[in-house]
Amino acid sequence: MAKAKKEEKSHKELRKEYTYNKLKGLGQEIIEEIEKNKVPNLKVPSRGTGNIVYDDAKRYYVLGDRYGRRSLGNVKQIRKLGQMVYVANFCKDLVAREKTATIREMYYVSEGWGISFKNQQESNIVGEDLEVTLGTTREDLGLMPEEDGASVYGDLTLFDEVEVNASKMGKSGYTISPTIDQVDFLDCNVDKVLAVETMGMFHRLVQENAHKRFNCLIVGLKGQAARATRRFIKRVNTELDLPVYICNDGDPWGFHIAQVIISGSAKLAHVNHDLATPDAKFIGVTASDIINYDLPTDKLKDVDVLRLKELSKDPRYKGDFWQTEIKKMLKIGKKAEQQSFSKYGLEYVVDTYFPAKFEEMENQA
Amino acid sequence: MAKAKKEEKSHKELRKEYTYNKLKGLGQEIIEEIEKNKVPNLKVPSRGTGNIVYDDAKRYYVLGDRYGRRSLGNVKQIRKLGQMVYVANFCKDLVAREKTATIREMYYVSEGWGISFKNQQESNIVGEDLEVTLGTTREDLGLMPEEDGASVYGDLTLFDEVEVNASKMGKSGYTISPTIDQVDFLDCNVDKVLAVETMGMFHRLVQENAHKRFNCLIVGLKGQAARATRRFIKRVNTELDLPVYICNDGDPWGFHIAQVIISGSAKLAHVNHDLATPDAKFIGVTASDIINYDLPTDKLKDVDVLRLKELSKDPRYKGDFWQTEIKKMLKIGKKAEQQSFSKYGLEYVVDTYFPAKFEEMENQA
Repeated sequence: MAKAKKEEKSHKELRKEYTYNKLKGLGQEIIEEIEKNKVPNLKVPSRGTGNIVYDDAKRYYVLGDRYGRRSLGNVKQIRKLGQMVYVANFCKDLVAREKTATIREMYYVSEGWGISFKNQQESNIVGEDLEVTLGTTREDLGLMPEEDGASVYGDLTLFDEVEVNASKMGKSGYTISPTIDQVDFLDCNVDKVLAVETMGMFHRLVQENAHKRFNCLIVGLKGQAARATRRFIKRVNTELDLPVYICNDGDPWGFHIAQVIISGSAKLAHVNHDLATPDAKFIGVTASDIINYDLPTDKLKDVDVLRLKELSKDPRYKGDFWQTEIKKMLKIGKKAEQQSFSKYGLEYVVDTYFPAKFEEMENQA
Repeated sequence: MAKAKKEEKSHKELRKEYTYNKLKGLGQEIIEEIEKNKVPNLKVPSRGTGNIVYDDAKRYYVLGDRYGRRSLGNVKQIRKLGQMVYVANFCKDLVAREKTATIREMYYVSEGWGISFKNQQESNIVGEDLEVTLGTTREDLGLMPEEDGASVYGDLTLFDEVEVNASKMGKSGYTISPTIDQVDFLDCNVDKVLAVETMGMFHRLVQENAHKRFNCLIVGLKGQAARATRRFIKRVNTELDLPVYICNDGDPWGFHIAQVIISGSAKLAHVNHDLATPDAKFIGVTASDIINYDLPTDKLKDVDVLRLKELSKDPRYKGDFWQTEIKKMLKIGKKAEQQSFSKYGLEYVVDTYFPAKFEEMENQA
């Protein structure tokens, strides 16, 4: 892509408008029912395990059709519905003022409402109820996670309060803002994304100029990817048409960090349409890599073996690639870290391993 | 300060030269002894508990005078001394090429040396031995921690590969590079630093324009401050003459996050001269704040009470301020998070709390 399309409204403005109208609609629905002398009630999709389904076509977890109704006519539900309206109102105000609050702040703010929460767990659940009822992410509602996202390095120009280029922000690059949907992509001169689990590997790639060599964005995931990171990866994949490659430690935990980016988590089935990137590819460290590159390894611990067996039964791992690699890892009984390539020198991973992997990927495509 | 002094050599160049000469000197010392037909040996300061002393004048932990000698004439020490020379040589190469490696990468690289390590713990210890022998930080030697430092927002211009201004890098600001001593400060138009424990509070401050209102740098510590963060705070305090104020959760853990920035840790006594900022001030949340602002609280848990009692006996907490606040917290039996000010609205902390605190600080000064 040469230039990101300049639409009349920016991504940020469109999301804001959409969310604001959704929140306003929720209130109007209640008002209308009251005006018709009906008892207001809201349809809340169920988030129970029984309603979380792996969608083969979409290649991620989604919510099924089950839902509950919350009615002001039911004494047990009045409190919860009231809280939801308060939270929606709080969020509408945040969205209008382009502000955010952490869910922790919301909990404290609610002390001033007539209908406060018993504890933060209760306020978190109502936040999720609203998310699932409106089909928007918490971040769109102005409710911010505590954690920032990954680090990004490479030739991507974006607008996040100011115009920045992720290759000109110092060695640690651009930090993905928790409110990544308030960010617009302006220009991009790379042709792929290479996401790695550790910041050690991120800095290795930056030092070896991997962003120039592979014409890629380098993303440092910092372990399990934050929601903002998953949203960022989804957006660059779909809006900028960039293929995404993930390289993590070669163990069940590294596998799953990649898989949650690819196919989403069951817990967030209601927002996976915004977070999952089914076309992202895990390129290593695989059990085959451990053998082919004769990597320094550690023995699988009992907990690793148990986890690998769990993964092999998970619908997200049912493809041939995963089944083969999981079996192979169980067979050799070993795991390896991504930094273990430095056995062959610090530059090896960039000079030899990634070029081989990218060639392999191109031959597959 | 208007402009950072532009010396002939940059901070980065001076540190590089100093470290390179230290490493070269270590090798030369050994060669000279061999040429004199002496058995080479190295003086390694002791890092044992008995040699870690709280220095009342410096106001942080330092190493005492005890040291050991490692000699090639002692069969038990040959291996360790050999490893140290290999690590020093590896680091000399890193410094010369302006590269870094994680201690994990060094461990894997060492597989190619004739004198490899049994496990990473052994290689870490040799890295620390070198640090303490030379009196330089690991980062100066090119050995990088895995983690990036804090987020910084505000009008500070620095050179980190490129010239950047921390108020023009997106909502999450500048991420402190793990190799912060390779960074030069170019210009600074703030008069203080406000460091906060959570990224939730960091984003609150940015949103409420606290950097303009208080003419400060906002630093988001992300919990226990990384070494790079502590070094950054030390540098802005001493090189740019900026007073540093820290606001954390009002509990023993928040107290200690501040205290490690102020007085350093015992474990890193050998590098506290580079990391500790004895003039930094903890401004809250104090036990007095909990009472004065009638904050939402949680009950102290047993582990909190235990920790508070430990802190009260720690030499770093012997001043009146800390003794009073610890006693008060034990008496009320309650703790409060920094985000709990949002009980009075999201803006309260910036509109009311911090202005009151800064006024108090100025009256004390």
